[in-house]
Amino acid sequence: MAASVWIGVDIGGTKTAIVLSSKPPAIQGRIEFPTLPAKGPERALGLISDSIGKLLCAERLKISALKGIGISCGSPLDRVGGIIQAPPNLPTWIDVPIKAILEEQFDTACRLENDANAGAVAEHRYGAGRGCDHMIFLTMGTGFGAGIIIGGRLYRGTTGSAGEIGHVRLTRSGPVGYHKAGSVEGWVSGGGIAQVARRAVRKARRKRIKTTLAKPPQDGLTARDLALAAAKGDAIAIQVIRSTGERLGEVLAILVDILNPDRIVIGGLAPRLGEALLAPAREVMRREALAPAAECCEVVPAALGERIGDIASLCVATGL
Amino acid sequence: MAASVWIGVDIGGTKTAIVLSSKPPAIQGRIEFPTLPAKGPERALGLISDSIGKLLCAERLKISALKGIGISCGSPLDRVGGIIQAPPNLPTWIDVPIKAILEEQFDTACRLENDANAGAVAEHRYGAGRGCDHMIFLTMGTGFGAGIIIGGRLYRGTTGSAGEIGHVRLTRSGPVGYHKAGSVEGWVSGGGIAQVARRAVRKARRKRIKTTLAKPPQDGLTARDLALAAAKGDAIAIQVIRSTGERLGEVLAILVDILNPDRIVIGGLAPRLGEALLAPAREVMRREALAPAAECCEVVPAALGERIGDIASLCVATGL
Repeated sequence: MAASVWIGVDIGGTKTAIVLSSKPPAIQGRIEFPTLPAKGPERALGLISDSIGKLLCAERLKISALKGIGISCGSPLDRVGGIIQAPPNLPTWIDVPIKAILEEQFDTACRLENDANAGAVAEHRYGAGRGCDHMIFLTMGTGFGAGIIIGGRLYRGTTGSAGEIGHVRLTRSGPVGYHKAGSVEGWVSGGGIAQVARRAVRKARRKRIKTTLAKPPQDGLTARDLALAAAKGDAIAIQVIRSTGERLGEVLAILVDILNPDRIVIGGLAPRLGEALLAPAREVMRREALAPAAECCEVVPAALGERIGDIASLCVATGL
Repeated sequence: MAASVWIGVDIGGTKTAIVLSSKPPAIQGRIEFPTLPAKGPERALGLISDSIGKLLCAERLKISALKGIGISCGSPLDRVGGIIQAPPNLPTWIDVPIKAILEEQFDTACRLENDANAGAVAEHRYGAGRGCDHMIFLTMGTGFGAGIIIGGRLYRGTTGSAGEIGHVRLTRSGPVGYHKAGSVEGWVSGGGIAQVARRAVRKARRKRIKTTLAKPPQDGLTARDLALAAAKGDAIAIQVIRSTGERLGEVLAILVDILNPDRIVIGGLAPRLGEALLAPAREVMRREALAPAAECCEVVPAALGERIGDIASLCVATGL
């Protein structure tokens, strides 16, 4: 039994996880449920509170044992006020004052942070970024964002929106991401890759090139399908992953030229797609960025895998 | 008479200035001479030493009164070793160990820093960046670079090359800067503007549009000519300044999305071209960058004017 504990809450568009830890990143208890954003925030907020109660109960702890609660969630949010402001993956969560709600219920400090920043700190403390002075963590999921570590500390910027590299424009036109055609999120996120892949499949069909990607329903084509097809040698899938890697390399080059980090850690799809994605990305980065800065910058997949959300929310609880 | 003093040395492609100060940014003595890089570094190094001696003599000070020497110079350089490594504006200055040379002659600590970083600290301490937490200083001269202030301190990156935004690619092709077609330096530096202007003049000639820019020898067309012509109402000059401002706006948007600074201070051509350049730049920045980050970021011309080199080198002397 632990004398005092932290609670981490990771709210995603698909699932929400609540974890309990007396010594992060070790996790003593965990409850997960589907977020179902279409049903609105009240249901999920109720389940979060219930889960915290259950986790404490399982450890035979009272509320007074809580040292703090950390919440990791998508942007936009008001970090200081602790308000979730309708992130794209939680469209019904409009101005949810989650900090105030949980602080009243559990009489403990509650902190809220965006998932890219929380993930950056988690990978820096416990994952692929350990020991780095200047590290950039890229979230390559449905969206595309960055958390920036400078001098070993999270850098948030003036209004907390530093790291929005997904919004930067790579080309005048192209796949849409972050409401912008040709943006980094358009080209390199999971959502963007699916757009690129659908286009490639249509083109292949016209040229009568065989691809297993043509089988799943077109709007259901995901990065996962792509990885599976590539593993089976599908030429179209391999080409889409390669071209996505090259676009990712352009993004890395921008970050290297501007920030000269010692490491860039890439989460989400990067650990799954592996070297098929990262090798062309490094190649383009080295060609596009200044040589001394590119040479000193390692580009590696994130190391915390599926645990990143849990650990990131605990990092928010203990302080970033 | 000052009891102890700092020396600043600002080495540019055109001129070198040596200043003496007991209390920066106030300057008690100053000597300037043409750098003449074609003649090699030895002549200039001799003149720098002579000038330091003369400045001390004029204040009736001995070498022991020297608290330190600061040198501001173009990249690339080895800051820690104090070696100038052939910057583009000083092509004959190959691996000049200026720190060792001056330290031996004057028996005092000598520091070397690139001019973008030194200028950033100068504007942050004494100019348009005073009071900022997170400030970016853009040098918009023959080249294009940035000095980044984060949390009130200069951010250098892992190998000292942070801020090389001039090397970032804006378009696949376009004017050349930093050995790269379509780079930020290609589009937005003084050298880049001249390329854009020459192209515009050729086009105007074919269309028989009158422009005073056609008069100066083509390879001698400078940003200064452009500013003069625009002031007289020359349509081509006005259009070139506007389109350069728009490209500058794209650069600002990248910096705002990634770094979310509270102010961007632009030196070199920006104070000279003024609102003709900055108004379209801000317009594009607001359109291209995320709204909350763009709204909180002021974009202003540098305030130190011609004094920036002197003050920047003194900042290097006292420590960045």
